[in-house]
Amino acid sequence: MSFTTGSSLKFSIFGSSHGNGIGGSLEGFPAGFRLDKERIKLWADRRKPGSSVYTSQRKEDDTIRIVSGFTGDYTDGSPITIFIENKDSISKHYDYLRDNPRPGHGDITLFYKYGKYRNYQGGGFLSGRMTAPLVALGSIALDLLKEKFGIEIISWIDNMGGLYFGEKIPEGSEEPYKFETRCENPESERLSKDILKEVLSRGDSVGAGIRTVVRDVPKGLGEPFFDSVESSLSKMLFSIPGLKGVEFGSGFRFQGMRGSEANDLFYIDGGIIKTRTNNNGGVLGGITNGMPLDFRVVMKPTSSIHIEQKTVNIEKMEESTLKVTGRHDPCIAIRSVPVVQCSTAITLLDLMIQAQKVGRVLKN
Amino acid sequence: MSFTTGSSLKFSIFGSSHGNGIGGSLEGFPAGFRLDKERIKLWADRRKPGSSVYTSQRKEDDTIRIVSGFTGDYTDGSPITIFIENKDSISKHYDYLRDNPRPGHGDITLFYKYGKYRNYQGGGFLSGRMTAPLVALGSIALDLLKEKFGIEIISWIDNMGGLYFGEKIPEGSEEPYKFETRCENPESERLSKDILKEVLSRGDSVGAGIRTVVRDVPKGLGEPFFDSVESSLSKMLFSIPGLKGVEFGSGFRFQGMRGSEANDLFYIDGGIIKTRTNNNGGVLGGITNGMPLDFRVVMKPTSSIHIEQKTVNIEKMEESTLKVTGRHDPCIAIRSVPVVQCSTAITLLDLMIQAQKVGRVLKN
Amino acid sequence: MSFTTGSSLKFSIFGSSHGNGIGGSLEGFPAGFRLDKERIKLWADRRKPGSSVYTSQRKEDDTIRIVSGFTGDYTDGSPITIFIENKDSISKHYDYLRDNPRPGHGDITLFYKYGKYRNYQGGGFLSGRMTAPLVALGSIALDLLKEKFGIEIISWIDNMGGLYFGEKIPEGSEEPYKFETRCENPESERLSKDILKEVLSRGDSVGAGIRTVVRDVPKGLGEPFFDSVESSLSKMLFSIPGLKGVEFGSGFRFQGMRGSEANDLFYIDGGIIKTRTNNNGGVLGGITNGMPLDFRVVMKPTSSIHIEQKTVNIEKMEESTLKVTGRHDPCIAIRSVPVVQCSTAITLLDLMIQAQKVGRVLKN
Amino acid sequence: MSFTTGSSLKFSIFGSSHGNGIGGSLEGFPAGFRLDKERIKLWADRRKPGSSVYTSQRKEDDTIRIVSGFTGDYTDGSPITIFIENKDSISKHYDYLRDNPRPGHGDITLFYKYGKYRNYQGGGFLSGRMTAPLVALGSIALDLLKEKFGIEIISWIDNMGGLYFGEKIPEGSEEPYKFETRCENPESERLSKDILKEVLSRGDSVGAGIRTVVRDVPKGLGEPFFDSVESSLSKMLFSIPGLKGVEFGSGFRFQGMRGSEANDLFYIDGGIIKTRTNNNGGVLGGITNGMPLDFRVVMKPTSSIHIEQKTVNIEKMEESTLKVTGRHDPCIAIRSVPVVQCSTAITLLDLMIQAQKVGRVLKN
Repeated sequence: MSFTTGSSLKFSIFGSSHGNGIGGSLEGFPAGFRLDKERIKLWADRRKPGSSVYTSQRKEDDTIRIVSGFTGDYTDGSPITIFIENKDSISKHYDYLRDNPRPGHGDITLFYKYGKYRNYQGGGFLSGRMTAPLVALGSIALDLLKEKFGIEIISWIDNMGGLYFGEKIPEGSEEPYKFETRCENPESERLSKDILKEVLSRGDSVGAGIRTVVRDVPKGLGEPFFDSVESSLSKMLFSIPGLKGVEFGSGFRFQGMRGSEANDLFYIDGGIIKTRTNNNGGVLGGITNGMPLDFRVVMKPTSSIHIEQKTVNIEKMEESTLKVTGRHDPCIAIRSVPVVQCSTAITLLDLMIQAQKVGRVLKN
Repeated sequence: MSFTTGSSLKFSIFGSSHGNGIGGSLEGFPAGFRLDKERIKLWADRRKPGSSVYTSQRKEDDTIRIVSGFTGDYTDGSPITIFIENKDSISKHYDYLRDNPRPGHGDITLFYKYGKYRNYQGGGFLSGRMTAPLVALGSIALDLLKEKFGIEIISWIDNMGGLYFGEKIPEGSEEPYKFETRCENPESERLSKDILKEVLSRGDSVGAGIRTVVRDVPKGLGEPFFDSVESSLSKMLFSIPGLKGVEFGSGFRFQGMRGSEANDLFYIDGGIIKTRTNNNGGVLGGITNGMPLDFRVVMKPTSSIHIEQKTVNIEKMEESTLKVTGRHDPCIAIRSVPVVQCSTAITLLDLMIQAQKVGRVLKN
Repeated sequence: MSFTTGSSLKFSIFGSSHGNGIGGSLEGFPAGFRLDKERIKLWADRRKPGSSVYTSQRKEDDTIRIVSGFTGDYTDGSPITIFIENKDSISKHYDYLRDNPRPGHGDITLFYKYGKYRNYQGGGFLSGRMTAPLVALGSIALDLLKEKFGIEIISWIDNMGGLYFGEKIPEGSEEPYKFETRCENPESERLSKDILKEVLSRGDSVGAGIRTVVRDVPKGLGEPFFDSVESSLSKMLFSIPGLKGVEFGSGFRFQGMRGSEANDLFYIDGGIIKTRTNNNGGVLGGITNGMPLDFRVVMKPTSSIHIEQKTVNIEKMEESTLKVTGRHDPCIAIRSVPVVQCSTAITLLDLMIQAQKVGRVLKN
Repeated sequence: MSFTTGSSLKFSIFGSSHGNGIGGSLEGFPAGFRLDKERIKLWADRRKPGSSVYTSQRKEDDTIRIVSGFTGDYTDGSPITIFIENKDSISKHYDYLRDNPRPGHGDITLFYKYGKYRNYQGGGFLSGRMTAPLVALGSIALDLLKEKFGIEIISWIDNMGGLYFGEKIPEGSEEPYKFETRCENPESERLSKDILKEVLSRGDSVGAGIRTVVRDVPKGLGEPFFDSVESSLSKMLFSIPGLKGVEFGSGFRFQGMRGSEANDLFYIDGGIIKTRTNNNGGVLGGITNGMPLDFRVVMKPTSSIHIEQKTVNIEKMEESTLKVTGRHDPCIAIRSVPVVQCSTAITLLDLMIQAQKVGRVLKN
């Protein structure tokens, strides 16, 4: 099924970018976790457009309504469902786009799949806006993992426009949010802004890489084979619009490595088994080995650009052109950082429940 | 669930590398497809060790027993189940390995997950041998897609040891099997063999990249969001032991691209909508757009090498060393080529059934 | 997972009887079906309390908000999600009930499962009110089956208070709604009302049996074994609060039958294979045989009665008493008739999609 | 999916009655449970035909081969897979049956679903023989529940041929196996044998009811709504060939009850909350309340009888007759008793794992 994912913790979304609204549900979340509406809003704002000149200026004055899942201030074991009203959904804007699919978007594939009945406005239910409920609900999972188990999920941009910013890992999960470009240090921020300015001036966009490191992830997470850590995470991550690659640990660099350098050798440090290197990104045989979970994803450049592009009119079956107007993101990866983080949180919490490391009712 | 995957077509495996045997089941396969035992054997042989000096010389004189799923010579709609007996499973060999986990393998994570009850022999149920049923059963899906729908899945090694062999796509799915190193042309074969010889001489191993291109894949495959083509394929692919990265189309190269070059522009060719480039690898919004499906995976170097490595004795909790004996693969990617191909076939057939492009009973 | 069910068509619910509201989602519904809000309201009203003196007088002035799933007036392939606001949820009323569980209700088992974090107000998320989204969304499935495939699902009360009203099947699905007691004829209505009056006068309630007959159900529906028609339907039906038994065809009467009378003998009628009797209720080997689908369910008497009952105070762990106030249903089965009908519609539509008898996009 | 069921513990079957063999897999079974092959054989024998004059005399000299799931003598967390070879599968016998479907069997519905590709021999994959792996694997779940948690599942025949043998519950799960007719006492045995003899003498068969009581089932089992105890159990139970009804607690007798007698009143007994009656069969709101789980199922009379019956020739589309030869069960319910018991065990163990009352690795 397409709009639901997960095993012991299920996440589902509904709605579309230009209908009544969008929402999502998190089913299987443990009872007894205190609701912090401010934290949810904080995370939602991090994904929202308009937070800086380097993200889309589209106004999304979203109010997140928590419909269910709580009794008093605590989760009660029932699905946590949220709903976000769509405020200004001007569909007129999308009449031309209906017949002339935007390159790089799913407009044309929705047409192939659903024909004249497709939800064609603004990407319909394939819109990036669909990640809003993912962040809102995922942030609750993020907080639970941090508060109750000390698991910290850190995501940041380590490559923009092909420029690699190095191996350094931010000190904590809040660090990258000190920078408008969600990177690790002021120098990377400065370089990123230069790229973004240049791209903005041309009406163009740029791709980027997001790395994620999870600290203090428990050993033994992940089910052998088809629900391995890598399989579970990649299934979730590849659902993020614009994400086109996932690699764990040394990832594609393994192509140029020998076994003798790729194997992470074991040693004992203070009674704990560790590995000298972490080429495997904390996962062996699909199961966590106690080293930090470490993976990277690539976000393609925002498909909506302010440059005239060639497309086809699918009604008349003739070639046409299209120029997307309105303000868009020069680099969608910036707003995808919290999306990756929250997707990771949901997946890890699911694996934690499957491995019975999180109970159905939390202990206090 | 860990040993089962898929939606309308479910694939499951059972057994372990050193127990009675291994097997698998393919549930939901359409009725009315003619069984070709020779083809199954052909594909199984392509994955089997010992086929050349460049793969492990371990003898696996496997006889694949088809237990169910057929009435007469045709599939009958019930699960196709196969069983492969383990012939020489000498468990004595694994006594030292029980306490001293092999670097790069899942030995230690099985210990973390199952403690003293773990299946510790030769990787247990995390062994690469578990891909044997995947190839045997996947080859039936491969043949169905080819015979009934003209869909051709081509996989080959395009990078070995960091050496990239170029963009050229083999003419057909059989091409790469003309080369012992499963590459695209004689020159790549020669270069690969040089690398493999050097690696073999040191008792070492090497990583590689496998590219897959699917020709004539129908438009409109893939379910929006969580069962997208990318999500479905990556979940399956990351289950292959040693696979550490998946990228679609331009993949990680998107990091260095602008939207204006990344967007695949539409045009009309003979009444068919095509794109000038295929940076998106045939997938937009998670759904196929009619262009060839195009993705790459990375296989890490074989973890078993003939060089002494540092490990720890998990019983005594002290550091130790380990040298894997016996003959192993210098580059596991070679034998993984048919595994990637057959995994792709199973996933695509699943998506085809979900999209109702394949019936529950085949038409003749 | 507990709040989601179904295979190719998934139904999920969220919310609780005394929180912000309740809602539900229907995922996998085919694109291209025209939305008829009046029909949805009609069906919702049939389940709603207060429609006659024989149902609870609780006011539920429900407005059903359709949040998503439609583009224009037609379904677009995305999840159809609805939301119903809770209007007068006075939680004060439930303070005594918090500590003194109502006999026959799930109050005590929610306590066992979720402890102090349970959703304790008015049955929480186990409340009968949770069937409101099931009816609203199920009615769309009901209409699709009728309009596009001529499948008619007829449910009615054939036994109240132990009084059996006979074998006669209503002419059409609308027939039973001509009677306040959802039965088949005026005489049954008169007898039912007598029972209900007597029961109401004592503050008591009464059980009943609901029979369902599905006309023109296609042959070959149902998957062998675990997703058989019987397994699929019973899983859904037993989710209806208060439903305690399901039997197909002759059901428990098979106990007293011989094979020679139980077997439905085949004959040919106008080129169609039929059976002389329909003891198997239209299902053989878990798959429909073309005869009407025929099953019965039993609804226990409403648990809330206006008679003082013995219970325990779970905080003080001492015996106590409880008298439920407010107006309740003398026979919950009356309002369950459309619930059974709509549950059947959702399950059958799911099986239709699985068997590829309904496409992902409807033909016109 | 049709041949797999369950959530945290998955059970699947493969094979058919007249192919190479049949088998099954139990995935998600906890690691660390000692294998007792004698116990598995004991339970398999209880289901096997030929155990007495009152069951079919067909020889099934089954050897159950445990293919995987164990390391040494203990379960290791991988799927427990078994295989049972078919010994004498004479398919010639089934040529007539191919064209002339047996009344009461799934022969005709397999034809409707799979056409000429159907598995037509002896019921194909709808055969009652498919319950053999269910019993073999379910018996391991049965033993785990008993040994580790003291949960005792007792099933017995309480009604044969319409003759009800009363409310009395056998002392333990072994009791009914002291009687050839799987009933509760010598008097019921005597009466049953009289019925069976009469039925056998006519070549006919008879229906029966099986009651199951589970003692010491933990409180709080079952997920709200769609994975309730009733939904989960009924989905599994209705997969048993010939089973046509399931009722919990007072079941269909609720039709004739008032709320004031149906509600189970709470009281405290030695610090434990109990109910005076158990009309709800130990389940409230879909969740166990600590009282014994109590349900009944009905098995229709064996469809294969030695009396000439009317059927149709589906090739020639003309009416025909059929007389089943060979020895068959006069009352299939007798051999279904262990099937019901083992199905219950698998379902309860699944719910136990979901509720985290059973770990992924057993404690000793």
